[in-house]
Amino acid sequence: MRKLNCVTWISAMLFISISVLGESKPRARDLGVPFDGQTGPLNAITDLKGVEVGHTTLISGDGALKVGVGPVRTGVTAILPRGKNSRDAVFAGWFNLNGNGEMTGTHWVEDSGFLDGPVMITNTHSVGVVRDAVIQWKVKRGEADMEGYWWSLPVVAETWDGFLNDINGFHVKTEDAIHALDSASSGPVTEGSVGGGTGMICNEFKGGIGTSSRALDKKDGGYTVGVLVQCNYGVREQLRVAGIPVGREIAAPKIWEQDTGSIIVVVATDAPLIPTQLKRLARRVALGVGRDGSYSGDGSGDLFMAFSTANPRAIAPKGLRQISMLPNEQLDPLFLATVQATEEAVINAMVAAEDMKGINNHFVPALPHDKLREILAKYNRLAK
Amino acid sequence: MRKLNCVTWISAMLFISISVLGESKPRARDLGVPFDGQTGPLNAITDLKGVEVGHTTLISGDGALKVGVGPVRTGVTAILPRGKNSRDAVFAGWFNLNGNGEMTGTHWVEDSGFLDGPVMITNTHSVGVVRDAVIQWKVKRGEADMEGYWWSLPVVAETWDGFLNDINGFHVKTEDAIHALDSASSGPVTEGSVGGGTGMICNEFKGGIGTSSRALDKKDGGYTVGVLVQCNYGVREQLRVAGIPVGREIAAPKIWEQDTGSIIVVVATDAPLIPTQLKRLARRVALGVGRDGSYSGDGSGDLFMAFSTANPRAIAPKGLRQISMLPNEQLDPLFLATVQATEEAVINAMVAAEDMKGINNHFVPALPHDKLREILAKYNRLAK
Amino acid sequence: MRKLNCVTWISAMLFISISVLGESKPRARDLGVPFDGQTGPLNAITDLKGVEVGHTTLISGDGALKVGVGPVRTGVTAILPRGKNSRDAVFAGWFNLNGNGEMTGTHWVEDSGFLDGPVMITNTHSVGVVRDAVIQWKVKRGEADMEGYWWSLPVVAETWDGFLNDINGFHVKTEDAIHALDSASSGPVTEGSVGGGTGMICNEFKGGIGTSSRALDKKDGGYTVGVLVQCNYGVREQLRVAGIPVGREIAAPKIWEQDTGSIIVVVATDAPLIPTQLKRLARRVALGVGRDGSYSGDGSGDLFMAFSTANPRAIAPKGLRQISMLPNEQLDPLFLATVQATEEAVINAMVAAEDMKGINNHFVPALPHDKLREILAKYNRLAK
Amino acid sequence: MRKLNCVTWISAMLFISISVLGESKPRARDLGVPFDGQTGPLNAITDLKGVEVGHTTLISGDGALKVGVGPVRTGVTAILPRGKNSRDAVFAGWFNLNGNGEMTGTHWVEDSGFLDGPVMITNTHSVGVVRDAVIQWKVKRGEADMEGYWWSLPVVAETWDGFLNDINGFHVKTEDAIHALDSASSGPVTEGSVGGGTGMICNEFKGGIGTSSRALDKKDGGYTVGVLVQCNYGVREQLRVAGIPVGREIAAPKIWEQDTGSIIVVVATDAPLIPTQLKRLARRVALGVGRDGSYSGDGSGDLFMAFSTANPRAIAPKGLRQISMLPNEQLDPLFLATVQATEEAVINAMVAAEDMKGINNHFVPALPHDKLREILAKYNRLAK
Repeated sequence: MRKLNCVTWISAMLFISISVLGESKPRARDLGVPFDGQTGPLNAITDLKGVEVGHTTLISGDGALKVGVGPVRTGVTAILPRGKNSRDAVFAGWFNLNGNGEMTGTHWVEDSGFLDGPVMITNTHSVGVVRDAVIQWKVKRGEADMEGYWWSLPVVAETWDGFLNDINGFHVKTEDAIHALDSASSGPVTEGSVGGGTGMICNEFKGGIGTSSRALDKKDGGYTVGVLVQCNYGVREQLRVAGIPVGREIAAPKIWEQDTGSIIVVVATDAPLIPTQLKRLARRVALGVGRDGSYSGDGSGDLFMAFSTANPRAIAPKGLRQISMLPNEQLDPLFLATVQATEEAVINAMVAAEDMKGINNHFVPALPHDKLREILAKYNRLAK
Repeated sequence: MRKLNCVTWISAMLFISISVLGESKPRARDLGVPFDGQTGPLNAITDLKGVEVGHTTLISGDGALKVGVGPVRTGVTAILPRGKNSRDAVFAGWFNLNGNGEMTGTHWVEDSGFLDGPVMITNTHSVGVVRDAVIQWKVKRGEADMEGYWWSLPVVAETWDGFLNDINGFHVKTEDAIHALDSASSGPVTEGSVGGGTGMICNEFKGGIGTSSRALDKKDGGYTVGVLVQCNYGVREQLRVAGIPVGREIAAPKIWEQDTGSIIVVVATDAPLIPTQLKRLARRVALGVGRDGSYSGDGSGDLFMAFSTANPRAIAPKGLRQISMLPNEQLDPLFLATVQATEEAVINAMVAAEDMKGINNHFVPALPHDKLREILAKYNRLAK
Repeated sequence: MRKLNCVTWISAMLFISISVLGESKPRARDLGVPFDGQTGPLNAITDLKGVEVGHTTLISGDGALKVGVGPVRTGVTAILPRGKNSRDAVFAGWFNLNGNGEMTGTHWVEDSGFLDGPVMITNTHSVGVVRDAVIQWKVKRGEADMEGYWWSLPVVAETWDGFLNDINGFHVKTEDAIHALDSASSGPVTEGSVGGGTGMICNEFKGGIGTSSRALDKKDGGYTVGVLVQCNYGVREQLRVAGIPVGREIAAPKIWEQDTGSIIVVVATDAPLIPTQLKRLARRVALGVGRDGSYSGDGSGDLFMAFSTANPRAIAPKGLRQISMLPNEQLDPLFLATVQATEEAVINAMVAAEDMKGINNHFVPALPHDKLREILAKYNRLAK
Repeated sequence: MRKLNCVTWISAMLFISISVLGESKPRARDLGVPFDGQTGPLNAITDLKGVEVGHTTLISGDGALKVGVGPVRTGVTAILPRGKNSRDAVFAGWFNLNGNGEMTGTHWVEDSGFLDGPVMITNTHSVGVVRDAVIQWKVKRGEADMEGYWWSLPVVAETWDGFLNDINGFHVKTEDAIHALDSASSGPVTEGSVGGGTGMICNEFKGGIGTSSRALDKKDGGYTVGVLVQCNYGVREQLRVAGIPVGREIAAPKIWEQDTGSIIVVVATDAPLIPTQLKRLARRVALGVGRDGSYSGDGSGDLFMAFSTANPRAIAPKGLRQISMLPNEQLDPLFLATVQATEEAVINAMVAAEDMKGINNHFVPALPHDKLREILAKYNRLAK
């Protein structure tokens, strides 16, 4: 019905170009940023078996803002804890570091202990359409029925992209959300200005989607922790990379007077944690963004969701469930991994994102890779 | 664009018939239910100066369910704390008694202390469309601008009407939400099967929208507390009216095996309360529904929002605000009023609602007035 | 060292007299109060296998208050989830309905999901001594060691008995807390003016310790829910018994201008619930006290703890734990049982308590049994 | 009564030596640690007018542990928001980053919005005695009366000093807590191994009490934020100073296998914030400890309290209160100040603390100043 052609085309081109150029596009570690800890093979949330990520990227138009027309710089990202073909839920917990944002569905995550469906991330003014679209997606797949009220409380989060995107044009449509779900896959995750992160800004540089993971030692259980961020928070002056106050040493145009963004973080692990424990994992995200220099400004919606892919079939209408649970005393390596992977995922988002021009020719520069390396070197913090 | 004709017509007819018959339609007190406390003039949330309520009621079709076609038994209710023409926010607090439901926007209510915009109530699968519609409504009125991110986190709650309504047909549209906002008014509030409450079921009788208020003695400050409920929770056997176990004494068809509904409650007061205090007010709603026999079943989304119409212009980007605050020790009459008005608003919803037939000829009877009186009389609890 | 003789003697006499007269002392059901649901054999929290309760009751002196001397009307109650000889913890969750009270140890219950040790209840000004005494008790038993920091966060709650008791005399001593622990036992629980409840007042009648239980049908899992309250809240006018507004129909001296008390509630179950679920159980206590007429006044410390005796050895420093978990959808009977047992335990406390005179000859009457029956009969609510 | 002579003497000597040597004892900035932001005149929580801090330091004995005898390395720190002679309360909010610790009194802080009395910090097993002592202190001053139940919920927090201190000997007595209160004063705050921090360990170096402050620009309101920490958390390997991974570059004996400590943080400001806003301030402490490398281990009790000295006489039994409130949008400089002052206070505690030997000759080294400077220099992060 809707003329998606142009947008879809650009979206498709983006995917192609990224997969073609994928290996040549450096990530933060490739630039010599010295992060702690051992990553998983992909250094991505998809190092967790079953986790799938899908993006719909909507980019179209240029120049002056015409509400409802464009320019469009937005999208949707879908994270599916057990993949798009599973109907099984995962244990989950969440944390609100600063509530100037939306994450729907948290009341039932809080009380049920389960995340039952995907986590969707989009722009602030498209949370609603994406939310109902998730229900529609389930209905179409025959997963919701008349009694199935638990299928109906989707988790959808957002950050605000109105500096670059015609946010009041409501360009995200039902089919865009469904596309993000249907195209979700395991494997490498495209980072930067894609999906929900398309028009996002982080520490006054171009931000967006970033991801990272940690693989624990066998003595610590051998579990994996993966983090995905939609990164749109912060002011340049506060940006720290690997502890170095990088932001203040890079000349760049002032975009915000104050922290006007947000950061949505999704944490996944295969460690068998119960909801109480996952809530604590979600809280550690705060320590990770703290390392990157965040002070979580008043305008920031800093909302974090953590889930565990262990314990399949923990949800059921009837019959005692048998659950595996890691002792609390064994949580420390997972806590540390969450902090580290969060710290890295934010920088990965910034490193991946490229310069972008949006509405009214608003321009947001990417974090300059050479300058970043130069500053780290100055502080003797450039990894060999 | 959309063929609203039939629905709009029915909706209009409903409004007309209600306003014509309004005075003859009894409320719970008229039937002799002995509630405690002194009501305000309207015994409604609109006893609070400035508070406006609007309903969009969507009723169409009969017989077998055809998803996307009908039958339709749903709608939207809008509660505007300072009326539809105010851009001012109110202090607010909320409480989650049982989280199997959605109320968007609570993270920012929690952290900002403000409710900035209306509270909307609809069916479970229409939360998204209503949420984005509120933003659209604001945008159209020129209230949101590029920096105006705080305008973008609407509060929208829901209960599930899929027993009577084609909930997976997504019949609530943007214009329905906007209509509820635009048609909101002070004065008497239509109760029963209207607005968001159209297809709701309460204690296995027909439920929906109910309201009540309490006017405090001058010695207690002379404040008013108003409550509005969208009532969709409970099982018949547990229903208590004025403490009497009425439910079990009325023969009626079994609709649920277990509590499968929800109740959304909005509490308004003109007492000058700060957010911390309003959160406590919201918590007292639990005691009110407790009096009516609720055990807040697993399937219930029992989410409560309280706000104060005092302290206009407490929200501002700059400049110290001067706030009035009632001492904590003076809260008791407000707590009691909240409990009492909640207890009564639920019964008002049930008394106002009439028999309804919905999808697949599902039938839900109204609470029979004569039978209710008979049982109260048997227990010597019928007010003179 | 301390001259405990007189107090101990009285305490001992009390125990003896209660055990001698035990069977003739009626409970609320014996008086014909029509509660819903099937009780366990003892209608007490000790219907849960393993749960032990101990009281230290301190009563001495008469007449004018002499701070540090008396009169003394106070004590300590200990609830041990797995009995005094177990070192094993239980899954737990808690809820704060109104925070004007103390319950120590909740931060770790919240984050660990475990209650590791007893729940102690005493008067407001003796929380500290009882708290440290629990550690001392553990140390003496060789249970705490240098690394054992988790043994050191005891859960101690309180209500205020300063109307009858020389609360600023700090009469509860370390040995009193230890005595409550050491004397804990399964079997019937002494109710009324004993243990922590000795000097308590409920709805302006004599209050104190009360208990009740519910035994679920086999089809609902056959689980048991037990509740113990230390009941010190409320105003007479609001008291409802089995839904009947009993309080306002009994002439009695006014003790408070407003709700100045508190209620501590402990919920135990053998259903295999995880902490998230137990938190929800604890929240249902609000619905139970709501049925009794509470509006949870500003001055009330209404703090509730729920635990499950299932899942032994869920706590451990190492090694995956295998946990049984009831599906969320099976929680309703447990929710209802919690509401019902709470409603009854409060009335049991009031029925068991007898007239008491305390400091400055302050007098608090017991709830008159005959009058209670008379009023229930008037409202056709006296059970056969 | 108790033979305090030796301990008192040492305590007195400590105070004298510190005041004599005070000016020569460097703080972290003096060593060239490059913190951000402008400090207040004292760079201490006492930069807030009215705030007073008092310590009781208990040091006695050497060598082998003899429970009840020693060695003793512990104490009490008192923070009085409006000084010891005020009966006025302050608005407050708190946050639990990791709940493996105790902070009593938080339920009423949460619900009342007020901190009414001091914040006390001691060791884990002495929370009780200190808590009751605060009540006793108030009673003696004639501040509590029979109706005065709000005087009875003291805020007392703790960290665990059992590696150096005979913690199971319960050496902190009522008079020690009272002494900390009575000796509290404005002016410079003694840091390191004093008061509640006496036996504490931070990142496997000697820790204890630290403080810092930030003075905001006039354009940001000119407010002050002060932070005081009792610092007992962390593992050496994770320690970051000014973003530099200092810990791993200093050879030092392994003390913990994992994070076994805790950190209590008190934040004070004179900005007119309401409780909701102070809760958000408390949450920013997490970002500050994150900068220092904390991952908030399972064994850590990380509990934070924030209060505002503005709005005197906001608490009252009757009469509308007139409150000043900073708009939420003006919070960012306060958030950043909290993060920065927390980051610095932790390092100040470590810089001030000196080597200590405790029970069983357990030895904890101080953070070596020269080594710290050397590492910062290596990373080009030594301030001129």
